[in-house]
Amino acid sequence: MPHQPRNASFAEEIKQSFAKQTIMALIGAELSRVEPGVIEITLPYRLDLAQQHGYLHAGIVATIADSACGYAAYSLMPAESEVLSVEFKVNLLRPAKGARFLARAEVVKAGKTLTIVRADVFAMDQDGERELIATMLGTMMCLR
Amino acid sequence: MPHQPRNASFAEEIKQSFAKQTIMALIGAELSRVEPGVIEITLPYRLDLAQQHGYLHAGIVATIADSACGYAAYSLMPAESEVLSVEFKVNLLRPAKGARFLARAEVVKAGKTLTIVRADVFAMDQDGERELIATMLGTMMCLR
Amino acid sequence: MPHQPRNASFAEEIKQSFAKQTIMALIGAELSRVEPGVIEITLPYRLDLAQQHGYLHAGIVATIADSACGYAAYSLMPAESEVLSVEFKVNLLRPAKGARFLARAEVVKAGKTLTIVRADVFAMDQDGERELIATMLGTMMCLR
Amino acid sequence: MPHQPRNASFAEEIKQSFAKQTIMALIGAELSRVEPGVIEITLPYRLDLAQQHGYLHAGIVATIADSACGYAAYSLMPAESEVLSVEFKVNLLRPAKGARFLARAEVVKAGKTLTIVRADVFAMDQDGERELIATMLGTMMCLR
Repeated sequence: MPHQPRNASFAEEIKQSFAKQTIMALIGAELSRVEPGVIEITLPYRLDLAQQHGYLHAGIVATIADSACGYAAYSLMPAESEVLSVEFKVNLLRPAKGARFLARAEVVKAGKTLTIVRADVFAMDQDGERELIATMLGTMMCLR
Repeated sequence: MPHQPRNASFAEEIKQSFAKQTIMALIGAELSRVEPGVIEITLPYRLDLAQQHGYLHAGIVATIADSACGYAAYSLMPAESEVLSVEFKVNLLRPAKGARFLARAEVVKAGKTLTIVRADVFAMDQDGERELIATMLGTMMCLR
Repeated sequence: MPHQPRNASFAEEIKQSFAKQTIMALIGAELSRVEPGVIEITLPYRLDLAQQHGYLHAGIVATIADSACGYAAYSLMPAESEVLSVEFKVNLLRPAKGARFLARAEVVKAGKTLTIVRADVFAMDQDGERELIATMLGTMMCLR
Repeated sequence: MPHQPRNASFAEEIKQSFAKQTIMALIGAELSRVEPGVIEITLPYRLDLAQQHGYLHAGIVATIADSACGYAAYSLMPAESEVLSVEFKVNLLRPAKGARFLARAEVVKAGKTLTIVRADVFAMDQDGERELIATMLGTMMCLR
């Protein structure tokens, strides 16, 4: 079922907020999709984002998934809100090995105070073949 | 109860492995304690590690906590092992606001295949006052 | 994508194993669907399964979701395996209020040692209207 | 650090609320300790609480841990509050094999709306020897 936004300018505000997340610029992540209840963030692989075997560090997988979850929740919040991550859990399904990564978050249940969001993270090779490498389930909070 | 290492050179190997985690250099994290079953990683705050309000991004909190958990598990594994994060959950208790951050991981239960680890992340102000800002509970896997 | 079972008699074995889970008889839960990678368990509401407000206790929500996850993982394991819950996380989305409950588990990624499973739990009213009340993400282990 | 209760009659209210959790009577669980920020629940093993190998079902482990977490959070909430489980994650460390079980919950951080709680579950043999079999990290919500 499609989600109904309560803040007409949610897309614009998410882009502005994302631009203030300085960590996104540091790692090279970009906001690639902004819809009510759905956010995608993409991240090209870089040699300086790796764990000891050269794969994307699990914490960076979590970083893009968490921002995607936060903005997916925010997209359904009323105007004048702030969003905060309460908790998230991530299962790492396969080595984070790829040319690019995509975190796709989708709201499971939007509430007045708490919103539950799920995110899948995919690795893409040079040909654009996708493989699911991680899945997150988290709780986001609305502050007014 | 103190943990008993099974790999005499665990400390040296953890230092070498940490040095290969290129993300640690990118964000400025350092390995500050290496003991059997216990690892600490410190991270000075920097303006380019932030979320939209200027606090340390939750994903970077998770990044140092996950590396600390992984090496805490690794410190108790036999020689010739590799460590892998299976999953972790992090509860974000307070805004990650501070001059420096410390992730302290401690093994809860070391197993042949799976090791369960807990990590606390503290924010420290200019005077060194500590405040708990996040807590992680995760599962690490031993590969031979 | 459909999952491919590796144990031809998985369905029979799951039914036999479920019958040995004495807690299922105590609470009145039944196995209602057994397919490769997908398991459903149903539970009629009873007054003696409640928390303080009369809703189904979150632990009983977790009980049926965990068994569903375990057997969903088991359905894709080779013959002569045992399944074990490593960890699970459950988000409780709405009060567990209904005439019947359905836990539906589906394998996210089946691995040699670890299998990641997601479960949704629905409450159904007298007319059979479904509402999602909880969602679980867990890790199951294969022992041979 | 000791927790400071804000509701003078918290202990009495917790006992009354626990008595209304009908599931506790069904499985035979008892409230064995009620202090500010700390709750213990004990459960004798019974043949009808088991999974397929005869051990206590992971969902019942979660049931006593979740109630312990909820009341630990509740013990620090103001009068006229209700407590609700938002989410919990449990890591199952060892088979839940024992004559009795003890869930001990302790508040990690009490907040106005959300309280984070940790619980350890121990198995005890006939001689009273304790072994840690599971650990939970959860989020509880205060409703007024």
